[in-house]
Amino acid sequence: MNYIGLDDFLLSALKEDLGTGDITTNSCIPADATSVGQFRAKEAGVVCGIDVLIRVFYLVDPTVKVEVLAYDGTFVNVGDIIATITGPSRSILSGERVALNLIQHMSGIATATAKAVKAVEGTKARITDTRKTTPGLRVLEKYAVKAGGGANHRFNLADGVLIKDNHIAAAGSITAAVEMTRNNIPHTLKIEVETETMEQVAEAVAAGADIIMLDNMSNEQMAEAVQFIAGRALTEASGNMGQRDLLPVAKTGVDIISIGSLTHTVQALDISLKFDK
Amino acid sequence: MNYIGLDDFLLSALKEDLGTGDITTNSCIPADATSVGQFRAKEAGVVCGIDVLIRVFYLVDPTVKVEVLAYDGTFVNVGDIIATITGPSRSILSGERVALNLIQHMSGIATATAKAVKAVEGTKARITDTRKTTPGLRVLEKYAVKAGGGANHRFNLADGVLIKDNHIAAAGSITAAVEMTRNNIPHTLKIEVETETMEQVAEAVAAGADIIMLDNMSNEQMAEAVQFIAGRALTEASGNMGQRDLLPVAKTGVDIISIGSLTHTVQALDISLKFDK
Amino acid sequence: MNYIGLDDFLLSALKEDLGTGDITTNSCIPADATSVGQFRAKEAGVVCGIDVLIRVFYLVDPTVKVEVLAYDGTFVNVGDIIATITGPSRSILSGERVALNLIQHMSGIATATAKAVKAVEGTKARITDTRKTTPGLRVLEKYAVKAGGGANHRFNLADGVLIKDNHIAAAGSITAAVEMTRNNIPHTLKIEVETETMEQVAEAVAAGADIIMLDNMSNEQMAEAVQFIAGRALTEASGNMGQRDLLPVAKTGVDIISIGSLTHTVQALDISLKFDK
Amino acid sequence: MNYIGLDDFLLSALKEDLGTGDITTNSCIPADATSVGQFRAKEAGVVCGIDVLIRVFYLVDPTVKVEVLAYDGTFVNVGDIIATITGPSRSILSGERVALNLIQHMSGIATATAKAVKAVEGTKARITDTRKTTPGLRVLEKYAVKAGGGANHRFNLADGVLIKDNHIAAAGSITAAVEMTRNNIPHTLKIEVETETMEQVAEAVAAGADIIMLDNMSNEQMAEAVQFIAGRALTEASGNMGQRDLLPVAKTGVDIISIGSLTHTVQALDISLKFDK
Amino acid sequence: MNYIGLDDFLLSALKEDLGTGDITTNSCIPADATSVGQFRAKEAGVVCGIDVLIRVFYLVDPTVKVEVLAYDGTFVNVGDIIATITGPSRSILSGERVALNLIQHMSGIATATAKAVKAVEGTKARITDTRKTTPGLRVLEKYAVKAGGGANHRFNLADGVLIKDNHIAAAGSITAAVEMTRNNIPHTLKIEVETETMEQVAEAVAAGADIIMLDNMSNEQMAEAVQFIAGRALTEASGNMGQRDLLPVAKTGVDIISIGSLTHTVQALDISLKFDK
Amino acid sequence: MNYIGLDDFLLSALKEDLGTGDITTNSCIPADATSVGQFRAKEAGVVCGIDVLIRVFYLVDPTVKVEVLAYDGTFVNVGDIIATITGPSRSILSGERVALNLIQHMSGIATATAKAVKAVEGTKARITDTRKTTPGLRVLEKYAVKAGGGANHRFNLADGVLIKDNHIAAAGSITAAVEMTRNNIPHTLKIEVETETMEQVAEAVAAGADIIMLDNMSNEQMAEAVQFIAGRALTEASGNMGQRDLLPVAKTGVDIISIGSLTHTVQALDISLKFDK
Repeated sequence: MNYIGLDDFLLSALKEDLGTGDITTNSCIPADATSVGQFRAKEAGVVCGIDVLIRVFYLVDPTVKVEVLAYDGTFVNVGDIIATITGPSRSILSGERVALNLIQHMSGIATATAKAVKAVEGTKARITDTRKTTPGLRVLEKYAVKAGGGANHRFNLADGVLIKDNHIAAAGSITAAVEMTRNNIPHTLKIEVETETMEQVAEAVAAGADIIMLDNMSNEQMAEAVQFIAGRALTEASGNMGQRDLLPVAKTGVDIISIGSLTHTVQALDISLKFDK
Repeated sequence: MNYIGLDDFLLSALKEDLGTGDITTNSCIPADATSVGQFRAKEAGVVCGIDVLIRVFYLVDPTVKVEVLAYDGTFVNVGDIIATITGPSRSILSGERVALNLIQHMSGIATATAKAVKAVEGTKARITDTRKTTPGLRVLEKYAVKAGGGANHRFNLADGVLIKDNHIAAAGSITAAVEMTRNNIPHTLKIEVETETMEQVAEAVAAGADIIMLDNMSNEQMAEAVQFIAGRALTEASGNMGQRDLLPVAKTGVDIISIGSLTHTVQALDISLKFDK
Repeated sequence: MNYIGLDDFLLSALKEDLGTGDITTNSCIPADATSVGQFRAKEAGVVCGIDVLIRVFYLVDPTVKVEVLAYDGTFVNVGDIIATITGPSRSILSGERVALNLIQHMSGIATATAKAVKAVEGTKARITDTRKTTPGLRVLEKYAVKAGGGANHRFNLADGVLIKDNHIAAAGSITAAVEMTRNNIPHTLKIEVETETMEQVAEAVAAGADIIMLDNMSNEQMAEAVQFIAGRALTEASGNMGQRDLLPVAKTGVDIISIGSLTHTVQALDISLKFDK
Repeated sequence: MNYIGLDDFLLSALKEDLGTGDITTNSCIPADATSVGQFRAKEAGVVCGIDVLIRVFYLVDPTVKVEVLAYDGTFVNVGDIIATITGPSRSILSGERVALNLIQHMSGIATATAKAVKAVEGTKARITDTRKTTPGLRVLEKYAVKAGGGANHRFNLADGVLIKDNHIAAAGSITAAVEMTRNNIPHTLKIEVETETMEQVAEAVAAGADIIMLDNMSNEQMAEAVQFIAGRALTEASGNMGQRDLLPVAKTGVDIISIGSLTHTVQALDISLKFDK
Repeated sequence: MNYIGLDDFLLSALKEDLGTGDITTNSCIPADATSVGQFRAKEAGVVCGIDVLIRVFYLVDPTVKVEVLAYDGTFVNVGDIIATITGPSRSILSGERVALNLIQHMSGIATATAKAVKAVEGTKARITDTRKTTPGLRVLEKYAVKAGGGANHRFNLADGVLIKDNHIAAAGSITAAVEMTRNNIPHTLKIEVETETMEQVAEAVAAGADIIMLDNMSNEQMAEAVQFIAGRALTEASGNMGQRDLLPVAKTGVDIISIGSLTHTVQALDISLKFDK
Repeated sequence: MNYIGLDDFLLSALKEDLGTGDITTNSCIPADATSVGQFRAKEAGVVCGIDVLIRVFYLVDPTVKVEVLAYDGTFVNVGDIIATITGPSRSILSGERVALNLIQHMSGIATATAKAVKAVEGTKARITDTRKTTPGLRVLEKYAVKAGGGANHRFNLADGVLIKDNHIAAAGSITAAVEMTRNNIPHTLKIEVETETMEQVAEAVAAGADIIMLDNMSNEQMAEAVQFIAGRALTEASGNMGQRDLLPVAKTGVDIISIGSLTHTVQALDISLKFDK
């Protein structure tokens, strides 16, 4: 993980939590006290965010040492030690909450992704995220999706093209929208078109779309669309996929299943930091 | 809501989503196209984040107009219109995802808080949040807790004192920790002490703690503690409260129930933006 | 043009030029003096940067008014008026240098691009830029390339894939590199491979590359490669194209000609601001 | 070179080029791969920007090592090695483009400056830059002018006084403008006046100007002005000097020749980074 | 002292003083020259700001070494050495002024605070600061108050409640204001009410205020108020306390004396840096 | 006053004072309450900072209106109204402290400067500031010096040259230091040399220094130096001038008297904001 860009975010998270200073710790823990502690899983799941945790403490105090036992992507059981930490007590306590908040959030995403990936095991379907991420955390959340075994959809409005209903309406037709877009974008990007009906699917194929999103369709409709497309474009199942049974979706033959809830409805994985006495 | 401080966050969220520019929209929607749309609830819940939504579009383009139908704290049903929006199509589409991601997240928090508040109705217990928030969003998340009818715990390590096990260990005893803290902090702050046993409760009372946190106790233990403390300090129930039946907790007589999951495990409220044809 | 992101750059450019304040102007021009002036081309070329010019003055002082006569992409002759400006003299003088430095630079790029586009007129070749841009100005420079009639290559290392010799060496082969990359990237991105020999071209085609860069090849080699590829991938001519005769390059049948010098060796278009007496 | 101030610029340049991450490199080069490479001149010129190059890689990854063979101000021939680099392949590739874009740009400026300095060799004329620099890069560009043997004009509107036609018009006369300015500025700054005629020169001398700019004059006019001024003020030749034959200009006896094109029309010096196999 | 947050301030102070670079030093001191110097008190007082001084030089150049002889809170006499410094001459001169400006300012505050604390020795009165601090320096100034033996009042409008006349007017009465406030704030904060008359004191006590500010009262009035309050709330003397004789104020029995002039009217402690020959 | 650059400072001052929000005001003053108030002098002095005050409230809330009665540089007596303010009560209270802290500080500087200027009335001596300013506030403090009738010395290390003892030691002699400096700096800057003895004065004159600082000299020494220099350079009296009787200093004939205490030891001018009932 490269820290350019990340550091700004972590420093601002630390300022948010420290305010004008940790008044409790500075009042009752001596500046030269040191501690040893363990980050431990309090429920089972996939760990993610170790590099972030290390960097948080590095930014607070470069003398804090973290030893990692479970790297990103590792499945841990209740009670497993994820990492140990050693250093000035004040520094550890200053970074604790930010580090925990992030690793719990990222591990929650990785855990949910791993579950979805497992659900479609044996099919060719790729599980991906969406742009329904928490503002400020997109890169970290998408990293967590990969740690859980998933893949990423576009990161922002500039690195992927997705022609939706509003674009089609404004352009006049799928055909017109694809044509205008192809003329305006870098040749390095594919063009994806959102469709809701078989007519739209057919028009998108004819227009030369590289990827066709099948939005809010039944499994039957999706199977029909996949058959019709017949490899002329990638196919992506979309629309409240977090509430669908994923295996039947995957069995329709779609290439990609994109799931917004992986990042918009996150259940934090419970992880604690306890100091040795 | 005051925008000082908030603007930095919103601008950085917009940059995160726009990257080097919305390549799809700029390719197939004319610069002078305008749209009218509705933000609509797709599930029932408590709305929160209207001011943020308005400000996001203001930052993108001050000519976009938002008309509000459901202000923060309002309960909406499936299909209710929350707000309408009018303006340049490109500007609306550029701000759409950030605005939705935030209002869905904040409304999710307000909805969950309202549920918890309702659960303890008729008791004196205050429902509060914790510092287990999403890095970067703390002020917005704590605002959402209030919109849902809850109250706030401290915002950061500087505006509230909470003496925990690690502080007690380092200071030698609760008595010593409270004494050292009282000498070092502004006289405007109360002192809260985390306790896990009746011995600790007794020591905290004797030391003059203003608030006593009853951490991970059974309802029986809490009732006993509350009786013992007898108004000499505020009492706060804490420890995985999100998974507890809240009414019996409240009936122990505690003043405050603090719930980490209000902000660390958020279920986004489904809200959509649809353009008129 | 969307000002999110741009404003930071323009404000920092203004601070760079103003330092602690325009000491000359503040000493000898009264605060209430107003001026009217014209931005005029002192050599022929394609104008670009009008929106930036307007925004610079807006940031200095929202009461300054700019009236545009030649929008971005317009060809102007010596002496043509590009825009007129009216407002407080101090404000105009404070923004003048930054505005001129930018519009001259961007117009220089647009002018050079237009020349290249004209050189390949009648062929299907697209003229594009590269990542050899001036640090801090990439979005503006790539915008200028489009204003001159060109197209954009990728904007950064995240929104386009280009497998170069160093990647191939590290991965073991083109085949391995393409395979590894396809598994790791969003499905929305194409894969481009840099080749220098016909063997590499053949391997890239077999590996399923979407775009094949023909780097530093003679026109004969490029023609041979284009024929061999036969539409199975887009082809891009690259390597000091700014010093090549472009029509013969285009006639080899390549889809894209990318030219680093469009942005790394810019000849500013001479534009002046003169005040009315 | 002091990195305060510079780091902000370099980090923002790196973010511009990295976007959300180097997707090609991260896909097909292992995290633990290391490389050795050479920065080599592909055309002859004066090197400038070595400190910037070193700092770029330091910011990306402090473990990358750069060994310098040709320091700033050194003339190199085609094929000369400027520096060698060793470190993690991913880190080198992440910083490569930004480092090259800057060193090529700065070396281009140093090379052009050296040419101008050589052209006036044997005369007392100082070659200087102007404020016609690339927004964001002024300090680096002015540094490059010095590396090429030139001198700097003022860095911004606060550290030098230059009374131009618009100031004179507003103040009423050169005499009035100089008087007002002298009363308002720190005593540490000289006063320069722009003149276009002998009458203006005479008035500037009488008003006590410290420096007189001879703007867009013929060599004959400049020689006459220099003789008239006779050491009572410094003299500066100005106005499209980049397109003039500099030796005759210098022989008019002017103290300074300021050349905008040194920084507004830069021809990048071709420098490449090649990895060892 | 934790450097998160502080670094931004110090870097911006260094940029303010360095501008585009230290032109004198860079002109006449070689890059490889080194120096040894002493920071010495030129008047007697309490030292404060040593950590800041160390950090300033660290940010300029991590190879500069500072050895501390008088830590924060130490009383020094004229001529005492506070710290020695060793390192590159250019780096020391670049940081000198910012470091001195800060340590002189902070030591001035610590010295004035120590004087006030000494004045009330033997009483229970705590000397505190206010929010009348220099914008940008609040954390440092409040740190200096503690170094001088004082205590801090609230740091900002969020970490302490102070109901003033304007609040009372808007709320209708002290009783109403206290009630509304108690319902809205975190339970971790006390409520302070500003009073000017005995009636207000009585109402504040009845309303359950935790702290009662006695604003601009005579010593007799304060004594009466303290007696009336009788421990039901903390009492704070306020209102131009910097111009009052503090011992009689303290003898009224107030718990706190808050003094705005500690931070709004600072007499810098004279400290110099001299290099060894 | 130009707000570029200033806004960053004011916003950060507001964030410093607001923290996570004005908890008192938001609790007991309704969002729609409005107020009218007066800024009034509580002691006599010279007002400075009106533009800053206006801008602070603009940044908080553009609907707040300020009407100015005493502009910068005006002398006010006890009780005089400086400005009136009208707008939402919450907004006024949110900006109040920052606005007052700044205007009191700046007016304090203007008042002290006016006193010094008056002390030397009838002589030619200019009163100037130094670089002994409060970090972050230099531009505002130097502005206040001018509002008080003084002049500015250099703003930073880049816009003025001052060769001090350490530079002389490193360069070998005054002669060498001046020579090296003249070759390295823009021709737009004068060269000032610090001297402590008549030998140094003589060497500085011979070396062609433009300004000679007479540091820590007696009035007799200064008079002798001024006579010796005889107009060949400007002369500047320096060294604890804040504690000297200024008229005799001025009568030595020095051109400039620079006084560090104008900005390092500021006595805030007492100004209050009172709301109408």
